[in-house]
Parts: sequence; C-alpha cells; structure tokens
Amino acid sequence: MLFLVHMIVNIPKDLPKDVAQEIIAKEKAYSQDLQRSGKWPHLWRVVGEYANYSIFEAESNDELHDMLSNLPLFPYMEIKVTPLAKHPSAI
Amino acid sequence: MLFLVHMIVNIPKDLPKDVAQEIIAKEKAYSQDLQRSGKWPHLWRVVGEYANYSIFEAESNDELHDMLSNLPLFPYMEIKVTPLAKHPSAI
Amino acid sequence: MLFLVHMIVNIPKDLPKDVAQEIIAKEKAYSQDLQRSGKWPHLWRVVGEYANYSIFEAESNDELHDMLSNLPLFPYMEIKVTPLAKHPSAI
Amino acid sequence: MLFLVHMIVNIPKDLPKDVAQEIIAKEKAYSQDLQRSGKWPHLWRVVGEYANYSIFEAESNDELHDMLSNLPLFPYMEIKVTPLAKHPSAI
Amino acid sequence: MLFLVHMIVNIPKDLPKDVAQEIIAKEKAYSQDLQRSGKWPHLWRVVGEYANYSIFEAESNDELHDMLSNLPLFPYMEIKVTPLAKHPSAI
Amino acid sequence: MLFLVHMIVNIPKDLPKDVAQEIIAKEKAYSQDLQRSGKWPHLWRVVGEYANYSIFEAESNDELHDMLSNLPLFPYMEIKVTPLAKHPSAI
Amino acid sequence: MLFLVHMIVNIPKDLPKDVAQEIIAKEKAYSQDLQRSGKWPHLWRVVGEYANYSIFEAESNDELHDMLSNLPLFPYMEIKVTPLAKHPSAI
Amino acid sequence: MLFLVHMIVNIPKDLPKDVAQEIIAKEKAYSQDLQRSGKWPHLWRVVGEYANYSIFEAESNDELHDMLSNLPLFPYMEIKVTPLAKHPSAI
Amino acid sequence: MLFLVHMIVNIPKDLPKDVAQEIIAKEKAYSQDLQRSGKWPHLWRVVGEYANYSIFEAESNDELHDMLSNLPLFPYMEIKVTPLAKHPSAI
Amino acid sequence: MLFLVHMIVNIPKDLPKDVAQEIIAKEKAYSQDLQRSGKWPHLWRVVGEYANYSIFEAESNDELHDMLSNLPLFPYMEIKVTPLAKHPSAI
Repeated sequence: MLFLVHMIVNIPKDLPKDVAQEIIAKEKAYSQDLQRSGKWPHLWRVVGEYANYSIFEAESNDELHDMLSNLPLFPYMEIKVTPLAKHPSAI
Repeated sequence: MLFLVHMIVNIPKDLPKDVAQEIIAKEKAYSQDLQRSGKWPHLWRVVGEYANYSIFEAESNDELHDMLSNLPLFPYMEIKVTPLAKHPSAI
Repeated sequence: MLFLVHMIVNIPKDLPKDVAQEIIAKEKAYSQDLQRSGKWPHLWRVVGEYANYSIFEAESNDELHDMLSNLPLFPYMEIKVTPLAKHPSAI
Repeated sequence: MLFLVHMIVNIPKDLPKDVAQEIIAKEKAYSQDLQRSGKWPHLWRVVGEYANYSIFEAESNDELHDMLSNLPLFPYMEIKVTPLAKHPSAI
Repeated sequence: MLFLVHMIVNIPKDLPKDVAQEIIAKEKAYSQDLQRSGKWPHLWRVVGEYANYSIFEAESNDELHDMLSNLPLFPYMEIKVTPLAKHPSAI
Repeated sequence: MLFLVHMIVNIPKDLPKDVAQEIIAKEKAYSQDLQRSGKWPHLWRVVGEYANYSIFEAESNDELHDMLSNLPLFPYMEIKVTPLAKHPSAI
Repeated sequence: MLFLVHMIVNIPKDLPKDVAQEIIAKEKAYSQDLQRSGKWPHLWRVVGEYANYSIFEAESNDELHDMLSNLPLFPYMEIKVTPLAKHPSAI
Repeated sequence: MLFLVHMIVNIPKDLPKDVAQEIIAKEKAYSQDLQRSGKWPHLWRVVGEYANYSIFEAESNDELHDMLSNLPLFPYMEIKVTPLAKHPSAI
Repeated sequence: MLFLVHMIVNIPKDLPKDVAQEIIAKEKAYSQDLQRSGKWPHLWRVVGEYANYSIFEAESNDELHDMLSNLPLFPYMEIKVTPLAKHPSAI
Repeated sequence: MLFLVHMIVNIPKDLPKDVAQEIIAKEKAYSQDLQRSGKWPHLWRVVGEYANYSIFEAESNDELHDMLSNLPLFPYMEIKVTPLAKHPSAI
C-alpha cells in the first residue's frame, strides 16, 4: 500500500548545533535504510522549504506509523499522511 | 525536473452524462499517452476523493503548464503544483 | 486496518426529490450491508450537521477507496480519510 | 452520549525528560482506567502524528470536560470535541 | 446540558419568494415553540449577517440533533455545535 | 447591548506556578464582580478546552474593551468579540 | 460608537442586468442618505475587489444591524463587523 | 508605484462559448494595451492554474483600481492586491 | 492615497517590563506625531484585542512602508495593508 | 524559467543583535550577487511587513532550491515558491 507523506521540519533554534547535526545524521542513515528496503521508494525536497514529500510502502497503518514515529527528527516534524489507491487511468 | 501535482476534480452535476463520459474517456487516453511518454511517471488516487496526486517530469514550467492546461478535465479541476528538488538523503 | 472517515453530504437543492430519496435509500441499504459485514463498524451522526464520522475496517487503501467511491451519495459528498494505528495506551 | 475527541499533543522541548516521562506514564494509567470503566471506549493513534482520535462516553458535557481537563497531558494538548448522535442508518 | 449553536442561513436566490417566506414563517413558529419550552433559552442575531448564535438546552446529543435537524431552514443552514460545561468562575 | 466573547487562555508554561495561581485567583474575583454587576451575564466553559464563551452586557464598545482589557489574564488570552442584536424570532 | 464593516459583494451572474442595476442604484441612494446623516462616515473601495471597508457610527448593535440588513445589496453580500473602541494613543 | 496582483479566473461553465471567447479576446487586447503603456510591466501564468501573477505600475490606488475593475474578465475574477515598496537590498 | 492597516501587537512575555514600557511610550509619541501631521488620520482599538485598525495617508507605497517599518513596536507586530480607492457612492 | 518566491522573515527576538546584523549583512551581499548574475531579477518589499516577493530565474528546480536554501536568513524564513509560465497575453 502506498502513502503520500508530507514532512515539515522545524528544529528549535536553541538546540545545540552538535546535537542537531547528530540527529540529522541519524535521520539520513535511518531514511536510507528504509529506502534500500523498498519501504520508502520516493523522497523529494520541496523547493525552498525544509520539508519533503515522500512515498511510503507499508503493509498496514501500524507499520507506517511505526516507521514515521521512529524517525530521529520525528519530535521536530509536522507530518500529514494521505493514503493512496490505484488510479483507474494509471498504466 | 519533477513536480508534485494535486488535482481535485469537480464535474458540474448538470453536465449531461454522455458529455461527461466523453471528456473522462479523453482524459484517460491523454493521461496514458503522457504516462507512456515518461512525462507522467506516477498517478495515484487519493483514497475517498475524486482527486489524485501525480508526479510530472518536465523540462520547464512552460512544458508542465502546457501538459496540465490541455487536460480534457482541466476546466473542472482545482490544481496545485509543488516543484520538487533532489533530497540530500535520497539514494 | 482502521480508518476514520469524515463525510459531509451536500445534495444539490435542484435535484428532484424522488431522485434524492431513491439515492438516500440505496445509501442506507449499501451502508447497512457494509456494517453487517464488519467493514463499517461505526457510523455516527455529527450533531447539527448533514455529516457523519465513521470507522471503516479495510485490508488495503484500495479496498477502502472502493467501498467509499461506490457509496450512492459519493458524488454529493466531501470525504476526508484519516488512517488510524494502534495507540500504545489502548487496552 | 458519545463524543469524538481529537487530541494533538505538543510537549515543550525544554521540559525535562524525566518530568515528561512521568506525566506520560500518569496519562497512560489515567486513560486505561477510563477505558476499563467504559468511559473511553475507543482510542486510536493518528498515523504519523503525536495525536489521537478517541470516542468518549459521558452522561453530560460537564462530565466529559471533567474527564478531559484532568488528563495529565491536558496542559500540553490541543483538544477539539465533536458531539455525536445516533445515525439513522446505523444498525 | 447547554450547547452554543452557530447557524449561518444561505437561502438559494432562485428559491421562489413565496416558498422561502413560508419556510421562514414555519422556522419562526418552530423556534418560538422551542424557546417557550425552555429548550432554546437564547437566540441572538449576529450583527450584519443572516446568522445567529443560540444557546440550546438538551438532555442528550440525540435530542439536540433532533431539534436542529428539524428546523425548517435546516437544508439551507451551515451549523456548528459547541458543547458547553459549567465554568469554575461562573456564579 | 450584548456581545458574544470567545476567550482562549494560553498561560506560558514557564510562568512560575505561584504567579500563575495569583493571576487566576484575581481573574476569578474580577469576573465574579462583573457577573454580580450584570455586566457578564453568562460564562460557559468550552468542553475540552482552556477557553470560554461569554455574554457581556455593555453600554458601548469602549466600556466592553475596558472590561476585557482589564482582565488579569488578558495578556495570556486570544479574544474574539461578536456584536449581537435582537433576533426577529426571539420571544 | 464606531464599527469597521467589511462588505464583499457577489451578485449572481444570472440576475437580469436591469434588476441588478436597479438594486445598485437603490444601494447608492440608501448609502448616500446614511452618509449624509453621519451614520456612515467612511466608505472606501478595496482596490481590485467588488468590496468595501466602511466605518459606521451607531448608538447600538441593533441600530447597526438594522442599517446593514436593510442595504438593498444585503442578500448578495458577505459582511463582517468589527467593533472599534477609542485607542489610547489616538489624538 | 508597484503592486503585485494575483488574479484567479473563474468563468461560469454555463456562459455561452462565443460570449466567453469574446470577453477573453477583449481581455487580451485590453491587457496588451496596458502592457505597451508600461502600466502592466509583468504578466505571468501560474503553472497549472487559470490564474496569473502580475506587476502593475500605478500613480495611485485609484488608478490601479480603475485599471483592474475595467478588465473585461473582472466580473469573473478573484483579485488580491499587494502593495510593493523598494527593498533595501534591491540593486 | 489611503490605506487600511491592521496591526496585531504581540510583545514577548519575557521582554523586561521597563524595556516594554519604554518602547510603548516611544510608539505613542511616534504615532501622535504622524497623527498630527495628517499621515495617520484614524487610529481605532479593536475591541477585546491588543490590535488596531488604522487609516494611513501616503504619497506612495514606499512612504507608507517607511512609516510602518519605523514604528517602535514594528518588530512585535503582525501588519496587513489594504490599499483603498475612492468608492463610487462615497459623498 | 521564472518562479515567484514569497519570503517571510522571522528572526528570533533572543538572537544577539550583532549575530543578527552579521547574518543580515551576509544576506544582502548574497542577494546582490544573485541579482547581478541575473538569477534574482526582481526583489520587492511587501509594504508593512518584514517580507518580500521576488522573481527568480533558474534552469531547474534543484538550482532554485540551492539558491534559496543557501540564503543566510534561510533558517529564519517561511518561503513559498510558485512556478510561473509564459502568459498567452504577455507581449
């Protein structure tokens, strides 16, 4: 099952730089693992914003929530999930 | 270049059924041509809505507008375009 | 998998009464079939509005979209779907 | 009487971790008591968000407000309450 | 139990005048019955708008929905219901 | 003249508890004086929220602003005022 | 007492031209009477919109509602009223 | 003086095609006159929408309103005007 | 040229009282100078809010921006500017 | 390709003045380089706001994102990008 996920990142300005960098590095590793596993097939940067649109592949809502809520940046994110279905015109 | 395109379809209730069906058929053919050409790589149905999220591939804004404004259903659509860039974590 | 579905019904005022009544009757039968099948475990009226909040049970996004888009009142509805997961405190 | 309650949790980032954990533990115990008492029949996690949709059963508005305002996490929550009535098609 | 109810009236311009007048007369009679019964203790006009704020007294959500959905103008209204509780400072 | 006043209270989390309690106590006393004087005939708690809907009686806009801006909690409140008129159906 | 009033005019496209012109002429005469009487001290056009911002002077909310609801264009207007008070810095 | 003007065009579906085409032709001629006169230095199409962003040059608000309200498509447009000033970093 | 200016003031709670008082005093002096000069002909308090609606008179957008951006409270304000034109019915 | 970019600047009040001044100086230099290079052909101040509307010229979405995300003030900005196409009436 596919889901469109919109993530807006908002890291508090007073978070120490090194702490922030560490979380961002973990986020990158975590996301690349999921991408390699096929769970996160698409990850695009929204032009001009610290935000992304992604496509996630999950067997269930619970699995998706698990993947999203374990994102290292999850506490600093505003996330909206839109469930997607097969479009009748899609080839 | 990739663009996320959100299309909400709102066909007037008083449009004669046959006219509507004809436009919808043209829309399907038009979209499948673009999909086969690689210009419209992804087309997903938003669950529960007469709407879709799509990914378009275009060389320029003008080309994208041309593709969208020639959609047979264009007069009955609310469209929002979000330009996408490569994400630093995307593999 | 559970989904919270918000449906706002907006039947055009100029739809002939008998046509409207027929669709509403079909809607009731359709919904009661799904309720009996366990696919639509909860259906509540929003106080003061021609709208409802429902809980749907579906194996996939596609199945959910199928159930929703075949609602007889679907053309006259504004629908929002929120995917639900198990809450860590739920007993 | 049933109510749909939407709770968005927003714990300040500078709240000491142990204080936060303690409140969250109290919240879990408090909510599970109410669930066992039948007052809080449904509690679902919104996929991708630190938020939930719940169904509360209360004899009166005052009782509902009392239950909600005594949630340990209440000071860190944005809550919207939607009163629900019996739907004419509900079986 | 008290509820704040916001009603915005939007009678279609093409509804024949006499039909509209008849519905409005029924609405007035219906509302004054409820006011006399104590169910509708307050009814105020929003300055500059064809809208009102009202206070309803109801034993249950179902009773309130019943009163509201039977308003003759109900098909032409946008209604929002806010459940009210006793304020700790209210004398 | 009557006014519907919606007050959302948002006390900063880092305001010392005793300071907050003192302001809240002053707020209660201030509001109960106005209630006894007939200036603040109705004060209801919005279920699930640290907010209230109130009805104020004032001779002029200036008098109303004076009453509201002198609320001890005024600096921590979001306030919306809706002027009310006599409804033609009100008995 | 002063009120800021925002009026957005939306005359249905299918209203016969002569009927519309007649209402607009009545609106002009009605408004100029109120302006001469001092009740409508300011009337400004919002640049680029069929809308205006006005300042009304009224003894009471009821009087203001009376003036506004009797505007010939009232059925075709979206109106928002903001009560104004004397500013402490106003000379 | 410069103004950013956002125009969303919404021609009613039931407007006869020839009438619509005539207005659109007039609109093009009208806009190209203003462009040649330097009053309308920029006119861009919003990708995917029947809308534009424009830059207008006007000596006064009245002149700008005059130019906009005389657009042949004005009755079918939603227009928002943002006044612009010289940016301290602009070269 | 006239402009409607809406200013919402939001002074941070942790700004030292004396600093805040000093800025507010400067704001009052600054605004009264502009009022006496005719540049700021109207300044009204929005009832119940730390906000105002004002009418400014300026020769150009640049002059208006200059006046607004030099308000001592400018860093703590949310400002919206609406350009106004002469209304055809204004006497 | 042209893009309309809306930037709202929100520098935290507790950022040391000298640090803020330094970033602002860097921002000015950075933006003037891009303006001289033709990449940033238009930069206008929104009257009354610490915000601007700009026109950017970029060969691709990636190039635009690169330019925007390297703005020294980027961490303190809310940015919205609207892709623009050639308007059929533009001369």
